[in-house]
Amino acid sequence: MLSVRNLINTTDLTADDITQILDTARSMEEINHRTIKKVPALRGRTIVNLFLEASTRTRSSFEIAEKRLSADSLNVQGSSSSVSKGECLEDTIKTLDSYGIDMFVCRARNAGTAERITQYTDARVINAGDGKHAHPTQALLDLYTMREHFGKLEGLKVAIVGDLLHSRVVGSLAPALRTMGAKVTLVGPPTFQLPEPEVFGAEETYDFDSVIEDADVVYMLRVQLERMEGATIPSKREYNRLWGLNAERHARMKEGALVMHPGPMNRGMEIDSIPADAQNSFVTRQVAAGLYTRMAEMYLLLGGEENAAD
Amino acid sequence: MLSVRNLINTTDLTADDITQILDTARSMEEINHRTIKKVPALRGRTIVNLFLEASTRTRSSFEIAEKRLSADSLNVQGSSSSVSKGECLEDTIKTLDSYGIDMFVCRARNAGTAERITQYTDARVINAGDGKHAHPTQALLDLYTMREHFGKLEGLKVAIVGDLLHSRVVGSLAPALRTMGAKVTLVGPPTFQLPEPEVFGAEETYDFDSVIEDADVVYMLRVQLERMEGATIPSKREYNRLWGLNAERHARMKEGALVMHPGPMNRGMEIDSIPADAQNSFVTRQVAAGLYTRMAEMYLLLGGEENAAD
Amino acid sequence: MLSVRNLINTTDLTADDITQILDTARSMEEINHRTIKKVPALRGRTIVNLFLEASTRTRSSFEIAEKRLSADSLNVQGSSSSVSKGECLEDTIKTLDSYGIDMFVCRARNAGTAERITQYTDARVINAGDGKHAHPTQALLDLYTMREHFGKLEGLKVAIVGDLLHSRVVGSLAPALRTMGAKVTLVGPPTFQLPEPEVFGAEETYDFDSVIEDADVVYMLRVQLERMEGATIPSKREYNRLWGLNAERHARMKEGALVMHPGPMNRGMEIDSIPADAQNSFVTRQVAAGLYTRMAEMYLLLGGEENAAD
Repeated sequence: MLSVRNLINTTDLTADDITQILDTARSMEEINHRTIKKVPALRGRTIVNLFLEASTRTRSSFEIAEKRLSADSLNVQGSSSSVSKGECLEDTIKTLDSYGIDMFVCRARNAGTAERITQYTDARVINAGDGKHAHPTQALLDLYTMREHFGKLEGLKVAIVGDLLHSRVVGSLAPALRTMGAKVTLVGPPTFQLPEPEVFGAEETYDFDSVIEDADVVYMLRVQLERMEGATIPSKREYNRLWGLNAERHARMKEGALVMHPGPMNRGMEIDSIPADAQNSFVTRQVAAGLYTRMAEMYLLLGGEENAAD
Repeated sequence: MLSVRNLINTTDLTADDITQILDTARSMEEINHRTIKKVPALRGRTIVNLFLEASTRTRSSFEIAEKRLSADSLNVQGSSSSVSKGECLEDTIKTLDSYGIDMFVCRARNAGTAERITQYTDARVINAGDGKHAHPTQALLDLYTMREHFGKLEGLKVAIVGDLLHSRVVGSLAPALRTMGAKVTLVGPPTFQLPEPEVFGAEETYDFDSVIEDADVVYMLRVQLERMEGATIPSKREYNRLWGLNAERHARMKEGALVMHPGPMNRGMEIDSIPADAQNSFVTRQVAAGLYTRMAEMYLLLGGEENAAD
Repeated sequence: MLSVRNLINTTDLTADDITQILDTARSMEEINHRTIKKVPALRGRTIVNLFLEASTRTRSSFEIAEKRLSADSLNVQGSSSSVSKGECLEDTIKTLDSYGIDMFVCRARNAGTAERITQYTDARVINAGDGKHAHPTQALLDLYTMREHFGKLEGLKVAIVGDLLHSRVVGSLAPALRTMGAKVTLVGPPTFQLPEPEVFGAEETYDFDSVIEDADVVYMLRVQLERMEGATIPSKREYNRLWGLNAERHARMKEGALVMHPGPMNRGMEIDSIPADAQNSFVTRQVAAGLYTRMAEMYLLLGGEENAAD
């Protein structure tokens, strides 16, 4: 069993928790390779997908994971204006909770929303991304992808590159890698650097070229183009030249190293098409890993072992 | 079996119908206390949730009820402008009816919509609220909540307090209580009084304080704040003082009496936080009862007995 | 088994393919006449309903068909502005494909979208209507309706009447009828005529009255009223007089001939209420046939035979 009731961030997880999730995810991958991709593990359980911020990718991944585990899903969508206000969120959760919900999967615009939901319900809660704060299910699928390829995470050198400041991926991925004994280097423009990288046990640098040849994984972060209008922010071409993964840098990556990206990619900005579509680009495998790891997380949090015995 | 094919309003139900629904709802409550909250009673049946007016609460309650009974749900949403027009509604219903639908659950802005649907289909119809007219599934969950607490409905003194004129709850709850032998008093501002309270076999008064000490149930109606802007309508503070359930009035309620509200509550207007969150406030139990009674209604209308035998 | 992997248009289908679909649809009709209208044929299969253009009718038909076959459905909706752009569509399909999708059902505003999707996935693809190009599942339900009534399609005289130029029905129905040996006459105003009717092996005429008495099926096309504002386009009354199926023309149809329409009907424009609601109007049966034929198409494309054996 996991040491936590909810999955709010990877900072709450022990190395043993993470290992359990990654091991269980491998069993889930096997289910997904069969013709009948379905198990009755969570039959009769009800999971609410509360997406206060629109997301086709992540919502689809959770919804399919729930169906493969035979859970019943209820989709509740809402603009953050109407539901993410304190009192109103409490009301929504307590009402749904009265129906005997087993789990809430929550995507929200504001940091801390998933945590707050745990105060209003005894159901389990999975944070599917809360503002710039955390995105633990993304971090776990990234770890799964890396471990399946390298066989282990310990000692792995991972460079996370780009818009560190606004990314909810960094806040979950860097601590999880540290927990598993990987070595993280954060690379980004001065304006996008984290104020306290040492919180994640990570080094920080401005110089992509100094790390490209040594990294086992080059993890490119998505740049939010709509935030690139300020005066101090470099142009697309300038960004690409200094912090983008282009063909030239890609060629300098060491043998067996991986290109990763949480998607969707801005081609020509943080990543060019040659590395994005290269043999060692694992972007598509990350998406597939998202399904397996989310199945594993829901299964483990809902006490799948006992339940599967019913 | 029930004496009706459809659930349009409680005025169509006999005391025996209501008793059957409340008894069956108790079995449904038991199902919902199990880990695997699901029965195959309506497997292979198709239920359309036709919500022409937005509603997260009521739609979620029906959708979960359908899943717990193993029915297949189809959600059809539409603005009242495009679908509630006479001809267009007929077209929509007849098209869906051709797919072999077993039941329509309909929420609409206009009174009479559910009744009208029964003319276009042989499928069963449940009225999930039609304008200011009726809301029978709310009334039945309220009766369930009261009967579970008091053990019976006969002789119960129920005060329904507030915006009587615009409420679709009153039009279903008052007649149902009368059918079951309860005594209803309607309390509200002169501008919100019903023109013919005797239709419901109910007394009507302006004076909340004259009934508060004697009532077994104080049922507070939601005030639609958006309708409170007219000249003859009292201010929020004034409304609360005269017709609101505040701490002082709550303290005068008799031993064992219940506070109820159909939700969502306007705290500080028709109800204050002390009574809303008190031990004898059954608002959350009402929500849960909504699931059990809706399961019972769908099960009984679709001839669950025979069907369960398959 | 069918000779095709996907259902993009009827022009790809052999007479044997069409016969297989219509025969299988008859078995599906039997399932839909039972109380428990459900078979486990596609249990554990995942079907994405990708509706880039809104459609309550067609989406409902597919969604119910999927539930009756016990498949898991995922609904993805999107404005054509955000998803139908080349690169973005590829991204969406590849992401969903990573979850192990078995089939995409796609409705799109632009011709060729369904075909394009087949390049991005190994999952099967059904074209649920792409712009003015094709609507093969509509054509197959029409053929089913005709064959069930007449016992055969060979030699049947079918008049397709109205807005030929903008209809996606014609582009699928006319070739399918030809494949099955029926004789098609296209009737429409000069401004709505097809530039190359001979592509469909069909004759074309302006004169509705010259074909009305001889046709076995009078298939009226929906006129898009919003396109009727141009100078060269006749008024509603004028259109109805020259190309509408009114009571007078209806009376001249031969014994046993059918009235058909893909819906929704513009009453008073291309069809009047007397023929629309007449005994020989099969509009409602077309809708029901849509469910049976779509079930058959999904079952056959997903290799139902082997699968049903599991």
